[in-house]
Amino acid sequence: MTALRARRSAERVHSKAGARIPQLPSRRVENPYPPMALLSSDQVEAIHQASLHILENLGIEMMNSRALALFESAGADVDHTTMTVRLDRGLIAEALKTAPSSYTLTSRNPARRLTFGGNIINFTLVAGPPNVHDFERGRRAGNLRDYRELVSLAQHFNCIHMLGNQVCAPIELPANTRHLDTYFANLTLADKPFHVSAIGRGRALDGITMMAIARGLSLDEIASDPGVGTIISVNSPRRFDEMMAEGLMTMAEFGQSVCITPFTLMGAMSPVTLAGALAQQNAEALFGIALAQLVRPGCPVVYGAFTSNVDMRSGAPAFGTPENTKANIASGQLARRYNLPYRTTPGSASNAADAQGAYETLMALWGAVLGHGNLVYHAAGWQEGGLTASYEKFIIDVEMIQHMMEFLRPIVVDDGELALDALAGVPTGGHFFGEPHTLERYATAFYQPLLSNWQNYEAWTEAGALDATQRATSLWKKALAEYVQPPMDADRREALEAYAAKRKDEIGAGEP
Amino acid sequence: MTALRARRSAERVHSKAGARIPQLPSRRVENPYPPMALLSSDQVEAIHQASLHILENLGIEMMNSRALALFESAGADVDHTTMTVRLDRGLIAEALKTAPSSYTLTSRNPARRLTFGGNIINFTLVAGPPNVHDFERGRRAGNLRDYRELVSLAQHFNCIHMLGNQVCAPIELPANTRHLDTYFANLTLADKPFHVSAIGRGRALDGITMMAIARGLSLDEIASDPGVGTIISVNSPRRFDEMMAEGLMTMAEFGQSVCITPFTLMGAMSPVTLAGALAQQNAEALFGIALAQLVRPGCPVVYGAFTSNVDMRSGAPAFGTPENTKANIASGQLARRYNLPYRTTPGSASNAADAQGAYETLMALWGAVLGHGNLVYHAAGWQEGGLTASYEKFIIDVEMIQHMMEFLRPIVVDDGELALDALAGVPTGGHFFGEPHTLERYATAFYQPLLSNWQNYEAWTEAGALDATQRATSLWKKALAEYVQPPMDADRREALEAYAAKRKDEIGAGEP
Repeated sequence: MTALRARRSAERVHSKAGARIPQLPSRRVENPYPPMALLSSDQVEAIHQASLHILENLGIEMMNSRALALFESAGADVDHTTMTVRLDRGLIAEALKTAPSSYTLTSRNPARRLTFGGNIINFTLVAGPPNVHDFERGRRAGNLRDYRELVSLAQHFNCIHMLGNQVCAPIELPANTRHLDTYFANLTLADKPFHVSAIGRGRALDGITMMAIARGLSLDEIASDPGVGTIISVNSPRRFDEMMAEGLMTMAEFGQSVCITPFTLMGAMSPVTLAGALAQQNAEALFGIALAQLVRPGCPVVYGAFTSNVDMRSGAPAFGTPENTKANIASGQLARRYNLPYRTTPGSASNAADAQGAYETLMALWGAVLGHGNLVYHAAGWQEGGLTASYEKFIIDVEMIQHMMEFLRPIVVDDGELALDALAGVPTGGHFFGEPHTLERYATAFYQPLLSNWQNYEAWTEAGALDATQRATSLWKKALAEYVQPPMDADRREALEAYAAKRKDEIGAGEP
Repeated sequence: MTALRARRSAERVHSKAGARIPQLPSRRVENPYPPMALLSSDQVEAIHQASLHILENLGIEMMNSRALALFESAGADVDHTTMTVRLDRGLIAEALKTAPSSYTLTSRNPARRLTFGGNIINFTLVAGPPNVHDFERGRRAGNLRDYRELVSLAQHFNCIHMLGNQVCAPIELPANTRHLDTYFANLTLADKPFHVSAIGRGRALDGITMMAIARGLSLDEIASDPGVGTIISVNSPRRFDEMMAEGLMTMAEFGQSVCITPFTLMGAMSPVTLAGALAQQNAEALFGIALAQLVRPGCPVVYGAFTSNVDMRSGAPAFGTPENTKANIASGQLARRYNLPYRTTPGSASNAADAQGAYETLMALWGAVLGHGNLVYHAAGWQEGGLTASYEKFIIDVEMIQHMMEFLRPIVVDDGELALDALAGVPTGGHFFGEPHTLERYATAFYQPLLSNWQNYEAWTEAGALDATQRATSLWKKALAEYVQPPMDADRREALEAYAAKRKDEIGAGEP
């Protein structure tokens, strides 16, 4: 077969598959390589000791009296006037004993079960931005239509394993009940595990209950086979607010996954030095994990890290910086010191889905992957330092995540791959297009990108000279057109609707 | 001091320094971490054995009769009809014995001396594109004005350690003498080491001679203290053309650095499989290195690698792919097996200085850094798979290189960095802006980017909502305005001019 015929044959395969956006199949992502170590074991130990010093001597402000009582009954030194808890190292060590090194989350589709721990990486949709942006409709406040579209995109792309908590805030809905609408959207438009809001007991319990309903489980049953997670943001430095602590305890009480994430922006909410920020992060994370274990020993927890730096000229937060990348790797070393699953984030401060957005996110994503992040939160769609969920950035991020997934596939070296017969068959200066060895493998030999354009300049210009951001616009539109809503049992859907309606009534009547 | 005062103070420092583009100081870049290993040692050995099989049984076509004679006299099996050389493993092992594991290149400014080997990374300006692009003047054929500007940019930015061979082809100049003009530009507009063209003896020797003149050395003297390098591209599969081989032998004869780089695009010029491509690359690289050592035992050589894949739908080359990233790391393992300095490249196929350009180059750059590349060729300005030198991409690449340089600075953990006093001084929920610990360090605590924009959305919009590519345009213009030509002794400059004029006459008269 000539090279030309081989190429034509390749084009036919492409045009058959070309009707849909190419993407990687659903798969569990494992990092087969050892985690990178930026800290020596002595340095890890020094940071550990510094964090114990913080916990024992400076303490953590815990603005929730139920949590204060729990700590006190466990033997911690509690100052009720300042709501400060000082934990000694023995108590921390005891609490860490019951924290599992790995756990699973199961959504309403058991095939979507995810494992958190070891060398497994799970990528989530961006969570929490107040705003939304795409290049067709511009920047706007988050709303339910956008919420539903972004969840549909996350469902559509296999490399997104899980939803974060609220891809945007649908602000046209009442603030105290919108979590019911977003949970309903998560459960009906997607069948992947998701994160619930842990601002208070009600929002957390509603999320747990609705996941249980969608799976046909009782609250007791889901407690032993969790389906949702939450992120507990710490009001760094050294403060847990009342509502977050309440959400944390609720999640733990019902056996769902709790990720404690100090937000340690160096120079602002933490020392300007990486070692100091890591010590603070470590103290705050261990404190929250200890609380979860006091509530329910063995409940699934995640060591969360979000250490980056600010622009010291303006105080503005920065992400995907060299310092953030280092923190993503070093924090993995700390999480592994305690044998805990690890959450990290590939952020960017860019205001646009541009080259800066790409390189900042990819810097931090390499940090996440080399640091063996188990939960890579905000992995797709994060823009403006988290203030905007971007449709185009989502597509760029999916492309970069898929690049990493393929990078992590080990190299095979065997007779077939070494190709000595093919090498013997091609004359010097010749080409391999038409070789049987090539023809047998070319369709699947290489990663096929969705966004990257490899046309030559002339063909690219003829096609409109669209840059990656412009191409991303047509890709999210195509993905929304291709999206298929996962089927759901009608009874369960009705039960979810009934639950949400009942809760809206209750909340409207002033119940929590 | 209040946070506000601290911020204002930071702003003052900034506005003082703000007159010039911020950049990292000149420094030697070392990777303090162990190289990443994607291949097991058994796999490295299997690839090594396969490459020996290729060299012993299939052989390499060597289209240069002087080289054929050299191989023959060294005991190789030479078929003069097909110009094929078969090298047995003993001969290869013998040749590798004299190849140095490390060497230096010294330009006319001794402070610019570079070391190639170990964990040291050197980044070079893109080399060889026929075209040039910037967003003010559009895409055009390379010319001397652009050549001079791009060399000036490379001189201006400290993170660019060395020039490649011809950042663009100045096509308005006669093809057989333009190398004299570009060498002259390299030597007068910059004072960094550079790569010469090795297409034939004349071009190579002119480059060596002009560097010797600029340093006030004889050819004998520069042979023991080399100042220029060259890239020998292999006509993969398994062919060295006459002129390239002549250039290789000339460089080796005069003791200058020779990097052998097979261009093994999987599926086109090499097998579609990574293991096969690496085996072929290894055979071709070792063959060229053996030739250099036969010419002059001990001459500085580099194990070059450029294994990427093609788009199997079109045959178009792709760069910065997951496969290319893996090859960049695995090839480092092969280079280290022979204790040789290692060249690799962070390319991109994008036709624009856009998000794709950024993520492809950064993928491959991580491969280069994790793989311990010593010579990171085409590190800044490469666009369209090497067909265009882009001004904006140059700025984006400088930013990404600086990110990597800062990432590679080890984390310090000591009492000052752990900041326990600062942590004790800031109340819970407070901030660190005004802390003495912060104020003492903030000016240098974090990497200050040149291109990244960390303004909030409103300020960014007010400032014109420029994306990274648009900002890159103003940065290269500013850099050209800031550029200062390095001083040169008038006598040496005149000697260079006289040499170039004499050689133009000779070449015009038909001399080689």
